[in-house]
Amino acid sequence: MKKVYFCGSIRGGRADAELYGRLISRMRDRGFPVLTEHVGSPDVMDLEEEMTERQIWEQDMAWLAEADLVVAEYSTPSLGVGYELAEARRLEKPTFCFYRGNGGRGISAMISGDPYYALRPYRTEEELFGLLDGVLNGVT
Amino acid sequence: MKKVYFCGSIRGGRADAELYGRLISRMRDRGFPVLTEHVGSPDVMDLEEEMTERQIWEQDMAWLAEADLVVAEYSTPSLGVGYELAEARRLEKPTFCFYRGNGGRGISAMISGDPYYALRPYRTEEELFGLLDGVLNGVT
Repeated sequence: MKKVYFCGSIRGGRADAELYGRLISRMRDRGFPVLTEHVGSPDVMDLEEEMTERQIWEQDMAWLAEADLVVAEYSTPSLGVGYELAEARRLEKPTFCFYRGNGGRGISAMISGDPYYALRPYRTEEELFGLLDGVLNGVT
Repeated sequence: MKKVYFCGSIRGGRADAELYGRLISRMRDRGFPVLTEHVGSPDVMDLEEEMTERQIWEQDMAWLAEADLVVAEYSTPSLGVGYELAEARRLEKPTFCFYRGNGGRGISAMISGDPYYALRPYRTEEELFGLLDGVLNGVT
């Protein structure tokens, strides 16, 4: 059972929070435990209030080390997601990056330009879930 | 002559672009060349249009490797800045993180919680420039 570290914006902005929740549910329904499922919860800020900054970082870094793959939805710019993606590369985790795009420039050249990442731009939510299924089907 | 890699948001949002320009000018005036001075330019998007995503990433990673220290102003959330900060730590560059704050939570627990970074929250621009001068005075 391969474990997923899911990356999405928390303090950078919660406009996509419900989408994160649907992505996390899909992965769980497909049999992939998501270590960071709080990222899709409407209560994530309250949950984090009970932890120090150091505790949050230590917990996330432990989960990232434990994960078999990393899935990010980074249409909402986030400092933390950028940091996590660089750490995912350092730890050599297979990393899949979903974002709303129309074939033009990516969200950040640091991610789009780094050949390490598997980029998955999408236009509609239907397309996004099709791409996610494709990623999960390929995980062995 | 110590060289600075300055990190600020480009595609994540340009609300602080003029502030980046003033920070870069101050560092240059103090005798510190800033390798990424385009981050403070109003034309940065046009400049990047002439390069591929891969070229931008390769250039930035070469500059980061060349830099003696890293200075970030990350009040505007940015995927690229998060990535650059993680890379700065991997390369063991001294890294100073400025952000507007009031003593509460940081901008991202991935940065505020990671003991590697020297955090410099500020409330006013006067305070910011005083903190920057303090950093530069300490660079030997």
